[in-house]
Order: sequence, then C-alpha cells, then structure tokens
Amino acid sequence: MTWAGVIDRYRGRLPLEENVEPVTLHEGNTPLLDAPCLARALGVEGRLLLKCEGLNPTGSFKDRGMTVAITVAAGAGAEAVICASTGNTSASAAAYAARAGLRAFVVIPEGKIALGKLGQAVIHGATVVAIDGSFDRALEIVIGLAKLDNVIAVNSINPFRLHGQKTAAFEICDALGHAPDYHFLPVGNAGNITAYWMGYREYHDSGVTTTRPRMMGFQAAGAAPLVRGSVVHDPETVATAIRIGNPAGWKGAENARDESGGVIEAVTDDEILEAYRLIASLEGVFAEPASAASVAGLKKLSSLGRLARNATIVCTLTGHGLKDPATATENSPPPVKAPADLNKVREILAI
Amino acid sequence: MTWAGVIDRYRGRLPLEENVEPVTLHEGNTPLLDAPCLARALGVEGRLLLKCEGLNPTGSFKDRGMTVAITVAAGAGAEAVICASTGNTSASAAAYAARAGLRAFVVIPEGKIALGKLGQAVIHGATVVAIDGSFDRALEIVIGLAKLDNVIAVNSINPFRLHGQKTAAFEICDALGHAPDYHFLPVGNAGNITAYWMGYREYHDSGVTTTRPRMMGFQAAGAAPLVRGSVVHDPETVATAIRIGNPAGWKGAENARDESGGVIEAVTDDEILEAYRLIASLEGVFAEPASAASVAGLKKLSSLGRLARNATIVCTLTGHGLKDPATATENSPPPVKAPADLNKVREILAI
Repeated sequence: MTWAGVIDRYRGRLPLEENVEPVTLHEGNTPLLDAPCLARALGVEGRLLLKCEGLNPTGSFKDRGMTVAITVAAGAGAEAVICASTGNTSASAAAYAARAGLRAFVVIPEGKIALGKLGQAVIHGATVVAIDGSFDRALEIVIGLAKLDNVIAVNSINPFRLHGQKTAAFEICDALGHAPDYHFLPVGNAGNITAYWMGYREYHDSGVTTTRPRMMGFQAAGAAPLVRGSVVHDPETVATAIRIGNPAGWKGAENARDESGGVIEAVTDDEILEAYRLIASLEGVFAEPASAASVAGLKKLSSLGRLARNATIVCTLTGHGLKDPATATENSPPPVKAPADLNKVREILAI
Repeated sequence: MTWAGVIDRYRGRLPLEENVEPVTLHEGNTPLLDAPCLARALGVEGRLLLKCEGLNPTGSFKDRGMTVAITVAAGAGAEAVICASTGNTSASAAAYAARAGLRAFVVIPEGKIALGKLGQAVIHGATVVAIDGSFDRALEIVIGLAKLDNVIAVNSINPFRLHGQKTAAFEICDALGHAPDYHFLPVGNAGNITAYWMGYREYHDSGVTTTRPRMMGFQAAGAAPLVRGSVVHDPETVATAIRIGNPAGWKGAENARDESGGVIEAVTDDEILEAYRLIASLEGVFAEPASAASVAGLKKLSSLGRLARNATIVCTLTGHGLKDPATATENSPPPVKAPADLNKVREILAI
C-alpha cells in the first residue's frame, strides 16, 4: 500500500477529530538503516540502526509534528500560523501552511540570522518579520498574536507537535518488530526526546511491544543546560539545530531519562564533527551536524564500556546534511589538482 | 511492510544476478502528491500529481540508478567507482560508494565549479580531482580509467543506471493503479525520460497496465539541443541540473517522445522560476529549479489548450530545493523590519 503520511498511518493514536482532513506532504516512513560499518568503527557490539529523519519532506523530523499541528489549525478554521524560529521549525511550518492554503508568519530578531537559514520559509511564501528585539521578545509577540482567533502558534508550545513526532517511535518498533534496547538522540529544545518516549510508552502500554528502550539524550557541550542543571545564556555550538540554552521540553526530557533509565549527557563540537564525518563516509548518510550528536554520544558510551552487549541500538539523525552545506565543505579536503593526463591522474589516485 | 529500497521492491525487473547483495540507502518510494491548488493555478482540468524525487537519500532521482550501478560494481568485486560530474550524480555516486565500502573518484575541470556543489561528494569521502582541462577531457579520463579491472564508471555510460531509474514509473503505476495519461519531466542529459519510458513500456508489455502515458519532456531554452536539433556549445540556464548541451540520452529521449506520442519542447528561465515559486508556495514542495521545468511545461501546454481534459498528469520533480539554497533566497522577498511591538507587528501582517 502507498504511504500517505503519519496521520493516515497512525490516526487512531493521534488526538484528531474524526472528520478532519489531513494536511500532509507524505512525511514519515523514513529509512531505518542497518549501519554495520559505523558500528564496527565505534566499537559497538550489537545491532546499530540509523533513523534517517532528514528524508522527511522539508528535510527534518519537524514535519511529523507539523502535519498534525497544521491539520488541527486548518480544521479549526485558522487563517494563519505563526512561529519564532530561524531553522527547521519555520521551514516545516511554512511548507505545511502552504499546502493547507494558510498564511504563515515567522518572527525573528533582526540582524542575528543568516538569510540562507530562512530560504525554505520564504520560498514557501511565509512572511518573515525581523523585529528590533531579542529572540525572547519575538516569542512573546508570537504568543500574543496567537491569542487572536484566526492565528495559531506552531512553536513548541503547540501541544499537537509532540503527538506527531511520537510516530517515529512507532515506525521503529513496527520495522523491527520490537522496541530497541537503546535510543540515542540529540537534545536541543528537548521536544523530540519527550515525543519518542511518549511513543515508546504508548506502544508498550497498549501491548504492541513488551519492552521500552533506555532514552540516551546528548546535548552539545556549549549548549547543555540539562546537563549543567541551569539555563545557558549564550549557547554556542556548530550544531545549530540544538543551540538552545533554555529548552521548552526540559521536564519532559528529564522525565524520559528517569523513567527509561537513560542519560542526558554532553558531547563536544569536535566529537560531533567526527561523528558527522563518520556517518557520511562509512554509511553514505549525510545528516546535519546536530544529528551527529546521537552518534557521538554512542561512541562515547561505547568506548567507556557503558552499554550492554548485543543490544539493538537506534540513533536518530534529525535533519538532512543539505540543511547546512557550509559545514560539509569546511570539514572536507579541497580537490586535488592534476594535469589532464590519464596516467598522472591514475598515479594520484593510486589505482 | 517496511520499504527497503528499489532493488528489494522490484528485483525481478532489474538485470541483477541472483545472489548479489543490494547496496541500498532505502531510496525510492517517494511521495506522489495530489496537487489540486497548483492544478487550479495552471488552469489544468484534470488530476495533477507531483512525484517528489528530492526525497531520495541524497536529494535527487539519481539514487534509483546508483543503487543498481553500485550493487553491480560491488558484486563484481570493484574497488572503486569513478565519474565526471559536478552535481547530483557525484553526490549519489559518493554516497552509495561509501555505503558499499568502495572508493569514489570524481574528475572535474579545474576552476569552473563552485565548491558548494561538491560538498556532498566530499563529505561522503570521494576524492575529487580537478584537472587542467575541459569537461569533455575529464570524461575521457574517466572512461580511460574505467578500463582498469577494478574501477567502474558510473557516469551515464553505465547501463544499469537507467534500469534503476525506471522504477519511478513502476511506483507511479503501482500507486495510481494505472498509468497516467501524461508524464511531464525535465530533460537535461535525457537519461530520465528514457528510463521512465522503459518502465512504462515494461509494465504495459507485461500486462500490469493497459495504457502508456505521453512523455512530455522540457528543456531549458538556453540548453535545448533536442529542441534545436543540434548540440549547444555554451548551454546556460538557472536550472543547473539540466544545463547540458550534448545529452548522452539523445536517441532514447527522441524515441520516448515518438513512441509515446509526446513532445520535447523548451521553457524559459523565467517560466522555470515562476513554476519553482508556485510549486513551493501553493503545494509546500521545495524542488530544485531544474525540477520546475516539468511544471513550467505543463503550464505552457495547458494555456495553449493542448492537453486532453480530465487527464491524469504526473510531473516529476527531480531534486530537492535544498540542493540550491541560493536560488531560493534570490527569488524571495527580504524580511520585513518591525519594532518589537505586538500591535505594530499585527498591523504589518494585517491580521
């Protein structure tokens, strides 16, 4: 049967009214790839799988939540959706709003944002407003405007997004026939770890699975409020998608960690970039830098002998590497120059 | 059942030996989206669907052919694959070579190529050689090196790629339950139109479908050798993925056109960019500029009344818009500046 998106597949497990028409770009059903070469390189004795969320329509896992949030907004007769975001959330919100025929507004602080990051939102027709103020002020304006009847906020305060995001856990269990033993993922705003845990718990509670994984969250060392136990005022990391100092999902993430017997720890930018290169060069998967925090975390715990042997381990790669082409170029060798001569090229390539 | 790539799904229709292990990133099974808003905007009276090939693992349709080409190369004991390409082909070749544990070489003319375009190939570990010579000279060197026993060329001269690419036609027929009436697609090197026609013909010949679509190919006006009937020496278009003056698939494309009762025509860059914006803003699908040639062609023929009414029409969008973020930013309005004041922002947004 043809895949028609996460609402079509998991409607019975989503808080949607009966007659609401899904707004979908056929998100979800992303590859869950066995990664034996990467496992070997990391010293992992067990089965390692990569959940490649960058193959969602707008290039990140955000689409799973956005299909539900925008479906609810359109079903409720909203005219517009609004968010304060400079990255994957605004891209996804703008795309689904376009699909639904809704207006989309993105509010950002002026001057702090590279325009390239907003390219997706604007090409999908979103109106971007750059305010003379901070990101927190932008979020206040978003929340203020969302009090209007016809405008709905699709920032992380929107409760439907986590329900959509939990479907990734369902897909993993459905593909494996059981829950994994460990689930590694990056932690930024901490919505995704909360959502995955919600999904795993739900499948377990209703008897679809008999076990639940340990949730293994990894923050970037320069943006690790959950690890430090306090807000980080100037978060800094190459992994821009998780550069967040005061996560909205703080409690949900701690809860997922504690209930599952998991961890939330930090990895350095160097560890993230090493993992980023390994995933691409050993398994052929190009993920955005933030995604690699999961694999960097796995490497760290594996090298410390902190994982059970012969476990089934899933790492979520949250977004596509094409989201951040500059990091790829900066972390790769330049072309080798050669004369236009077959034998010289052959020598250079050592073939 | 979980999707495990086009070889797993269509193996019986691919020229592979029995025991060869597929090299796959779970390519294929891309969304076929109904596009009613776009149809209305183009004046199309019928059912319009978009085949979103940008959701393949490396962001373009090339992955369908590459899984087959690299599977054959790995199965034959090759140590390396090689190609002369600056775009989607090299990205895909490098990714699948990494997945297979093969070396990948990309030969390009020095100085003519923006490094960003090669970011995917290099992050996947390909060695890029920039020769002191033309693109044609690079291709000669590739063909020369591919005469070595352990090196296989995965340029369009590789016969297995078209077989992989034809699976997109199978997927469309499987999803619809029948063949479409018209299939619109961009034509650059002309492999894809050849491959789709191969797929449609094969399903028809073996009785899976009872009809075959007209193949409607569109070149960019500045790179339209098939329309002109002669090689274009300095092809120029914003649609870089189809900026090709002397297509390898020339004969196959003419054959697809003539056997199917279709056309190969040209659209201008302005028409391509208009279609590019419409697809993104009306349906929420971000495709690279070359992809939009299919939709621009549909608009043109629809406005001239050259299409049958109530037809089922598929347009292939060949690559993801994230492949070319600069074109999105250049073709979109800049952010609107505003004071950090709720009511002022509300006024500006007219909500």
